[in-house]
Amino acid sequence: MSLTAPLHGVVPPVCTPLDARGEVDTASLTRLVGHLVDGGVHGLFALGSTSEAVYLTDAQRALALETVVTATAGRVPVLAGVIDTTTPRVVQHARIARELGADALVATAPFYTRTHPKEIAGHFRRLRADVDLPLFAYDIPVAVHAKLSAALVRELAEDGTLAGLKDSSGDEGGLRRLVVELGGREGRARGPVPHFSVLTGSELTVDAALLAGADGVVPGLGNVDPAGYVRLYDAARAGDWMLAAREQERLIELFAMVDAGPEHEMGRSSSALGSFKEALRLLGVVDHGATVFPQLPLSAGSVAFVAERLRGAGLPPVR
Amino acid sequence: MSLTAPLHGVVPPVCTPLDARGEVDTASLTRLVGHLVDGGVHGLFALGSTSEAVYLTDAQRALALETVVTATAGRVPVLAGVIDTTTPRVVQHARIARELGADALVATAPFYTRTHPKEIAGHFRRLRADVDLPLFAYDIPVAVHAKLSAALVRELAEDGTLAGLKDSSGDEGGLRRLVVELGGREGRARGPVPHFSVLTGSELTVDAALLAGADGVVPGLGNVDPAGYVRLYDAARAGDWMLAAREQERLIELFAMVDAGPEHEMGRSSSALGSFKEALRLLGVVDHGATVFPQLPLSAGSVAFVAERLRGAGLPPVR
Amino acid sequence: MSLTAPLHGVVPPVCTPLDARGEVDTASLTRLVGHLVDGGVHGLFALGSTSEAVYLTDAQRALALETVVTATAGRVPVLAGVIDTTTPRVVQHARIARELGADALVATAPFYTRTHPKEIAGHFRRLRADVDLPLFAYDIPVAVHAKLSAALVRELAEDGTLAGLKDSSGDEGGLRRLVVELGGREGRARGPVPHFSVLTGSELTVDAALLAGADGVVPGLGNVDPAGYVRLYDAARAGDWMLAAREQERLIELFAMVDAGPEHEMGRSSSALGSFKEALRLLGVVDHGATVFPQLPLSAGSVAFVAERLRGAGLPPVR
Amino acid sequence: MSLTAPLHGVVPPVCTPLDARGEVDTASLTRLVGHLVDGGVHGLFALGSTSEAVYLTDAQRALALETVVTATAGRVPVLAGVIDTTTPRVVQHARIARELGADALVATAPFYTRTHPKEIAGHFRRLRADVDLPLFAYDIPVAVHAKLSAALVRELAEDGTLAGLKDSSGDEGGLRRLVVELGGREGRARGPVPHFSVLTGSELTVDAALLAGADGVVPGLGNVDPAGYVRLYDAARAGDWMLAAREQERLIELFAMVDAGPEHEMGRSSSALGSFKEALRLLGVVDHGATVFPQLPLSAGSVAFVAERLRGAGLPPVR
Repeated sequence: MSLTAPLHGVVPPVCTPLDARGEVDTASLTRLVGHLVDGGVHGLFALGSTSEAVYLTDAQRALALETVVTATAGRVPVLAGVIDTTTPRVVQHARIARELGADALVATAPFYTRTHPKEIAGHFRRLRADVDLPLFAYDIPVAVHAKLSAALVRELAEDGTLAGLKDSSGDEGGLRRLVVELGGREGRARGPVPHFSVLTGSELTVDAALLAGADGVVPGLGNVDPAGYVRLYDAARAGDWMLAAREQERLIELFAMVDAGPEHEMGRSSSALGSFKEALRLLGVVDHGATVFPQLPLSAGSVAFVAERLRGAGLPPVR
Repeated sequence: MSLTAPLHGVVPPVCTPLDARGEVDTASLTRLVGHLVDGGVHGLFALGSTSEAVYLTDAQRALALETVVTATAGRVPVLAGVIDTTTPRVVQHARIARELGADALVATAPFYTRTHPKEIAGHFRRLRADVDLPLFAYDIPVAVHAKLSAALVRELAEDGTLAGLKDSSGDEGGLRRLVVELGGREGRARGPVPHFSVLTGSELTVDAALLAGADGVVPGLGNVDPAGYVRLYDAARAGDWMLAAREQERLIELFAMVDAGPEHEMGRSSSALGSFKEALRLLGVVDHGATVFPQLPLSAGSVAFVAERLRGAGLPPVR
Repeated sequence: MSLTAPLHGVVPPVCTPLDARGEVDTASLTRLVGHLVDGGVHGLFALGSTSEAVYLTDAQRALALETVVTATAGRVPVLAGVIDTTTPRVVQHARIARELGADALVATAPFYTRTHPKEIAGHFRRLRADVDLPLFAYDIPVAVHAKLSAALVRELAEDGTLAGLKDSSGDEGGLRRLVVELGGREGRARGPVPHFSVLTGSELTVDAALLAGADGVVPGLGNVDPAGYVRLYDAARAGDWMLAAREQERLIELFAMVDAGPEHEMGRSSSALGSFKEALRLLGVVDHGATVFPQLPLSAGSVAFVAERLRGAGLPPVR
Repeated sequence: MSLTAPLHGVVPPVCTPLDARGEVDTASLTRLVGHLVDGGVHGLFALGSTSEAVYLTDAQRALALETVVTATAGRVPVLAGVIDTTTPRVVQHARIARELGADALVATAPFYTRTHPKEIAGHFRRLRADVDLPLFAYDIPVAVHAKLSAALVRELAEDGTLAGLKDSSGDEGGLRRLVVELGGREGRARGPVPHFSVLTGSELTVDAALLAGADGVVPGLGNVDPAGYVRLYDAARAGDWMLAAREQERLIELFAMVDAGPEHEMGRSSSALGSFKEALRLLGVVDHGATVFPQLPLSAGSVAFVAERLRGAGLPPVR
């Protein structure tokens, strides 16, 4: 399904379930895609940070993306992350993603190396020129240690390089300013870049982002409760902000599962991604809750904590 | 006016206007207090970061606070910042603030030195014990380079140390989680700490913070347009979120004045605080727009940029 | 003793011992000064970070400095830290330090606020102009969160603003480049700024800094073992680099005392400064080992760890 | 040449010269290897940060490594960087490096994701278990945004996981402490891990690191002047520390070439790596000075600056 209209709505970054040997579990992944599309989501983002893309080999990435594309069967657009250190490596991932049927690409700024804004601009422009798919910038300073400035995003929006932005910077004030500069909540269609999609990567401030004029959300927690995020999105679109806020609050309480793993015993990735995957297992969607090595597994106590959060949010475990 | 009810509404951090010799201009400051109270604000925060408190000598701090208290004349509560490196120095400022008639204190975590959360907790507890005024924690990692964790704030809220939080961390997701943990947007009165006030320090996300259940806002830009923030607050309280968002957007465009000073020529403090003070001068509220040394003054071109922002937001300069 | 020659040698930042009530213990401080001068040090730095200056009230700062000046009695120069957030506050401390007999001033860049290099340059120039004492820049990014660039230090050295640099940045490579730019290890006297003193603040790389051409060291650990640092300095000056390195290694093993307090239980300041002060107590120099609130005290086990380090370095406790 | 003895001496990270089409220039790379081995270096580090490994595709990485191994022909050991985000991807690079004839591996901590020290330890252990080659930890927080603690390095040294450390952390004090903990400058052979090699990645503090007991250096600038670093190493080994320091100072002046590209116009990688590669071109070693996209090329003025630095250090350009 090509991106004929600006991307909007709920676009979860799809978890990559593993089998007992630590390989991509295509049967579970297929079920997960079904769970998400049946939940009413508006798009899928494969090979993102939540998909553990940086933990997957190239072969595993290809298998995961292929599985998502096949299972989606064109019902919603599939965005593919092309996360790697610099342009030459990212372009290779982008070519493969295009061959495998992705509808759009999502790329970060270069990382590991220290790069100038002019070089970051060159990076996105080269990528857009070399691989003919709509391109979304992925602003995630916690991972790449560089923030995409509003000026840079505007420049790349206005010259047609970027189709949109996935903002995982946590800088809600900056996102708000960007939306206003792009024409504002109500005037976006008449703004300088009418078709530029702004998506927030925060699970916790979706109602606020939509009130601010964002087009949608890419919530990791949306793997666990896609229907909840869709209800939140629909309430906001209907102008029922109190309903949206109440749904957001329920999801915030559910989100507390990311603290399942004690901070002094494992990385934040192990804890957050492990909690999403264990929740999907408890809900019967996937077969195993394991994350990729060297992330540490959640303890039984941590899994019980996840189960409790599910119950509290009205999503009782089925196993 | 003592804080009998939980603090709420618009509580601007009051700028400290200077005279031609660089001393506190009490006449201008008195006019500024009138401008704010007449604008409908619900409280005033003297000696905050926006007040340039860390640039003022102790004598200048005392004069500024005394002037604000006198000019306010009990119409709204006056909060006093007590910003200094560690507990012994902060306690001294707090005693003076109490003598000068402040209704509450606002204190940051210790800075310059590296401190453990247990030591930060001790800092707030000692301050609360030594000086009998309601105490607000001021979470401003960009200045003190430590973030107050939600767990620490909750602990200090539940044991009665803190009356509230001024959140200038920019972590809107974290603020949202804290509000939910404290009982949520609608259930705050029934939560574990019914009288704990949550105030955002962001000028840009006030509608979102109020939708999330915050009690109010401490906007530096509120010096320039107090009535605008009051309209935004009133719209939110009335449940008219689209009206609130439109007012917020107008204020975001006005806020762009903080970029008046080129980033490669002066500090962000010079630019932002200089733009607020020059705006107040252009509006006829204060006599001079200067900031305290070593901050650099805005150029004529930068002042013209500020004037343009004022006109764009419907606040035409009078000089 | 005025600074007629460029400052060089071992210049410990003098700890500020407290009595049982938490006030400056002038008798212990006087003994500490004797311990240091008898140990052969070449200068004293009062009211530095190691002196807990940011934890002391203005009255306590004055008492500590006065005590150090009196006890030193002109035998070595006394430098006074003037640590505060911005220029107006720092100038006040500098005037008091001058009145109390300090021979030179040591000032950091402004902190709490975000400042531009031009503003930092203005800060040092104003301070030098307002108070007629030799001025040392104190580069300590871990505390003030700004690094003084080599270009800025050179500019302020060449125009006579600065008499020297105390480098606590930990950037040994940068320090090395600066020394070369100033004329090199051997050519310093013929360089662009012949009388500019470069002092390292690192306890751990003194032999290396002297090999690189630094003039001296400001070691916190020098409170505990001044004679050790003097031996290290003398060996380096005599060109016996292996002897210097062996002395440095002994001091590195002694320095391990700073880890006395467990990292998850107290701040790094509590642990390091507490270990120095407890070591001085164990050696009979001061009466109490307490640090200023809200720093936490070392446990009995941590004090035993300090005692063990002393014994291992040939400095057996006397109590 | 297998690593039978602990690695020591000068081990430059080999630049990867490009041809006019931007592909690996194997002829130039072969000449560069000759230049280095003829200069007397003790080992070569291919596919490091200075080799632009994170800018090279897997095929380009393999070609570069193969070329270095072939050109070296066993005269010195060849270490291969295996830089990628997480363990599964790094293991793949390691297997290829082993097949291509590398004598040892150099791996960083995982990056992009946030990882716990236990996970970092697991990462190095899995890598050592899966690919049978001596393994060096590459501590480079500026790139991976995590510092390897001394405790972690010791643990992995003592259990045989690591054969050594390449320290590019810039924390010279920490490196010094580590060497002392491992048995000290003189007692290393009798220490807990007799065969653990400590190499500094700093071009600027090699004399200091050798005085501290480090075994060698991995200097990017060693591409340009391998013989200079060998002279510095030999002087230090002979105990002539003043000769070592003078050679170090000459190399520091040469190192100033890394500032060739103006900071506001290009990234630090473009400037530093571009200056090394242009210097190699000016010296007739390689055919082109280009860096990999999206790094920006040096201007003619910047290249002239590099040429001047070469002349000043006694290395006159031949073209």
